[in-house]
Amino acid sequence: MTRDLTIAAVRLTPILVADPPLLNTQGVHQPYTPRLIVEVETADGITGVGETYGDAKYLELARPFAGKLVGRQVSDLGALLLLADEVAVDASRVLGRVDVGGLRGVQTADKLRLSVVSGFEVACLDALGKSLGLPVHALLGGKVRDAVEYSAYLFYKWAGHPEGVPSEKDDWGAAVDPAGIVAQARAFTDRYGFSSFKLKGGVFPPEEETAAVRALAEAFPGHPLRLDPNGAWSVETSLKVAAEIGDVLEYLEDPALGTPAMAEVAARTGVPLATNMCVTTFAEVQEAFTKGAVQVVLSDHHYWGGLRNTQQLAAVCRTFGVGVSMHSNTHLGISLAAMTHVAATVPNLHHACDSHYPWQSEDVLTERLTFDGGRVTVSDAPGLGVELDRDRLAFLHQRWLDDDGTLRDRDDAAAMRVADPGWVTPSVPRW
Amino acid sequence: MTRDLTIAAVRLTPILVADPPLLNTQGVHQPYTPRLIVEVETADGITGVGETYGDAKYLELARPFAGKLVGRQVSDLGALLLLADEVAVDASRVLGRVDVGGLRGVQTADKLRLSVVSGFEVACLDALGKSLGLPVHALLGGKVRDAVEYSAYLFYKWAGHPEGVPSEKDDWGAAVDPAGIVAQARAFTDRYGFSSFKLKGGVFPPEEETAAVRALAEAFPGHPLRLDPNGAWSVETSLKVAAEIGDVLEYLEDPALGTPAMAEVAARTGVPLATNMCVTTFAEVQEAFTKGAVQVVLSDHHYWGGLRNTQQLAAVCRTFGVGVSMHSNTHLGISLAAMTHVAATVPNLHHACDSHYPWQSEDVLTERLTFDGGRVTVSDAPGLGVELDRDRLAFLHQRWLDDDGTLRDRDDAAAMRVADPGWVTPSVPRW
Repeated sequence: MTRDLTIAAVRLTPILVADPPLLNTQGVHQPYTPRLIVEVETADGITGVGETYGDAKYLELARPFAGKLVGRQVSDLGALLLLADEVAVDASRVLGRVDVGGLRGVQTADKLRLSVVSGFEVACLDALGKSLGLPVHALLGGKVRDAVEYSAYLFYKWAGHPEGVPSEKDDWGAAVDPAGIVAQARAFTDRYGFSSFKLKGGVFPPEEETAAVRALAEAFPGHPLRLDPNGAWSVETSLKVAAEIGDVLEYLEDPALGTPAMAEVAARTGVPLATNMCVTTFAEVQEAFTKGAVQVVLSDHHYWGGLRNTQQLAAVCRTFGVGVSMHSNTHLGISLAAMTHVAATVPNLHHACDSHYPWQSEDVLTERLTFDGGRVTVSDAPGLGVELDRDRLAFLHQRWLDDDGTLRDRDDAAAMRVADPGWVTPSVPRW
Repeated sequence: MTRDLTIAAVRLTPILVADPPLLNTQGVHQPYTPRLIVEVETADGITGVGETYGDAKYLELARPFAGKLVGRQVSDLGALLLLADEVAVDASRVLGRVDVGGLRGVQTADKLRLSVVSGFEVACLDALGKSLGLPVHALLGGKVRDAVEYSAYLFYKWAGHPEGVPSEKDDWGAAVDPAGIVAQARAFTDRYGFSSFKLKGGVFPPEEETAAVRALAEAFPGHPLRLDPNGAWSVETSLKVAAEIGDVLEYLEDPALGTPAMAEVAARTGVPLATNMCVTTFAEVQEAFTKGAVQVVLSDHHYWGGLRNTQQLAAVCRTFGVGVSMHSNTHLGISLAAMTHVAATVPNLHHACDSHYPWQSEDVLTERLTFDGGRVTVSDAPGLGVELDRDRLAFLHQRWLDDDGTLRDRDDAAAMRVADPGWVTPSVPRW
């Protein structure tokens, strides 16, 4: 009866997936964005899948890491973090490269490693669950809820990528003003049933963005609202925004950059502050918590090092009376499944999680995950409960192979320069 | 291939086990002490075992809790904590009873519940591991070491229990002075290979106890030493002791009672302070860490609510740069196995764990766990890797049945009054 849990093979497949022209303070999403699909196969022929960032520097780290996994047990999750320490990384070389890491806080060699580990950890958990006949949430101690709530992740966006740039069409239309954002929100609720809304800000002057939030509040009275300018504001601007729209905000996300600035904002407003920029590693927790800089930490299993580390972060937050919810960067269904499994096990998850998934028209699964009433049902099938579509994977990998290298490292500022050649990444505070 | 993980039956067996006349600041150990053995049986007939406190108030809570478990899955560990909230406890009634809880910090209804939960959690993990063919450490994410180091837990003790009191003989002899303690330490190293030593203090005036520690330092130069008076000292006495023997101490354990006193001691000495009294629940962490009151938390899976909570506590400590090790109260082999499995998974365990196990001549296992070079090897057998001896269990349960009630609630002060009728639990600070 005992299964052989030995890892017999590891496959890494970098892909490029379509991404709409979503705007943020650094620029605009590229028409195609890199992701890395991780497959771990046991000696019994059972395959587990994981997903993480796909930029070249992650790949560079993932390859030697994959080699070290063969011959180990998929149940040996604690060792993944120790193993990661053995994979040398020339931090000065890889960290210097352009990256949207700026949207998710400090960049360190350690965080890079943890992002890679998370892809392998999820793949191992998927394989382990399939081998044992248990869902991933059971391997994490069991779900405490049957469905996980997500928020509508609203973006300022163009109708399409710049003329002449190869891209996939999307049917969301443009959204560059309050009316456009409200229309986008309506489309999100109609299609997915979301009842809380997050607007990615830092794109237009604060007056325009607060007007958009005010318009949302009028269109959806009583619904939780959030605004996230990715640290683009000064302390004074943050306080001005908090005073203006604090009455309709569930929380304000990273209004200003860094723990000292966030602490100053927090000390001078009653509006809760959330972050995925000043608390992005365990090393940053103590200072931020001690200074009262954040009231909600937005975890992300990719850069916190996996699902088990996410649970530990939640325990740390619970212990210090800090709320917890979930950050999202561009991701596919494997990561949404992983996010849903871990979120289902966290007792102190009191806010709807973020997810980019509705923006991703392409996926590597035979069946997409669905939102019902803004919620994803927690799968009780073995493993993550998803199935890889090998034809789609091959197609998206071919796109990566065909790329001349310009899209393999996500660079929102470069994408913006296609439309606006004079664009430079704004210095912060921008307003 | 899929196993049925449904809980078909739960058995609770209170027992009384022999305990030597070990002295502490509250009195002396009773000749027999209560423990509760928990068995969880799956629909497939697989049995998992757990162990926790056996005093009447734990039993009172464990019985309705056991009833709620039937029909649930042994993998549903997260739900145990939620389920515990449903088991009503008349706190004012049960908490008023005499208990040695005073040696392990604040007593609350919540902590009582967590102590009961831990017995069930370990039993579920044992059953789950046996069902899946995986050791408990693998269910906890995998071991990061193959053996767990324990320290010699030295006690002042009498040669035997008072005349006329039914008891089992022990061959450790008396230890009421430095020479006796050094002889005991030598016996511990000879039998078990321990290389670090903890002396339970708070029994004699501090000068006598520091003399014993100094004697240990001379007999075992360079070995880690600890002294634990269970909060019996004032801040000034604590500082005096720290100054006198700080040069040979690995840490000083709970010299003074409560976070403010500990914080004051910590602020005025460079000797690290450990605790299993001022930080015994997640609710106590924030104040103690913020005030720098403790440098090492001694976790105890019994009252922290199980092995998974112990891992979360370790993560909290790691995040705040606080050390972690393991506390022990009187326990048997099931708990030693559980402690060893979880300790094997905690990366930041940098001190040898405490264990009373060498003092327990009786157990409920077919084969006792052994210390080799002061270490317990982490079992890779399915579950905890222990087997219940039903004859021994029945024998020790019969002793519990035969007791007229005087021993069913551990009461070290009452046991002391048998030898010294005028004994009252000393008020603190005692010195």
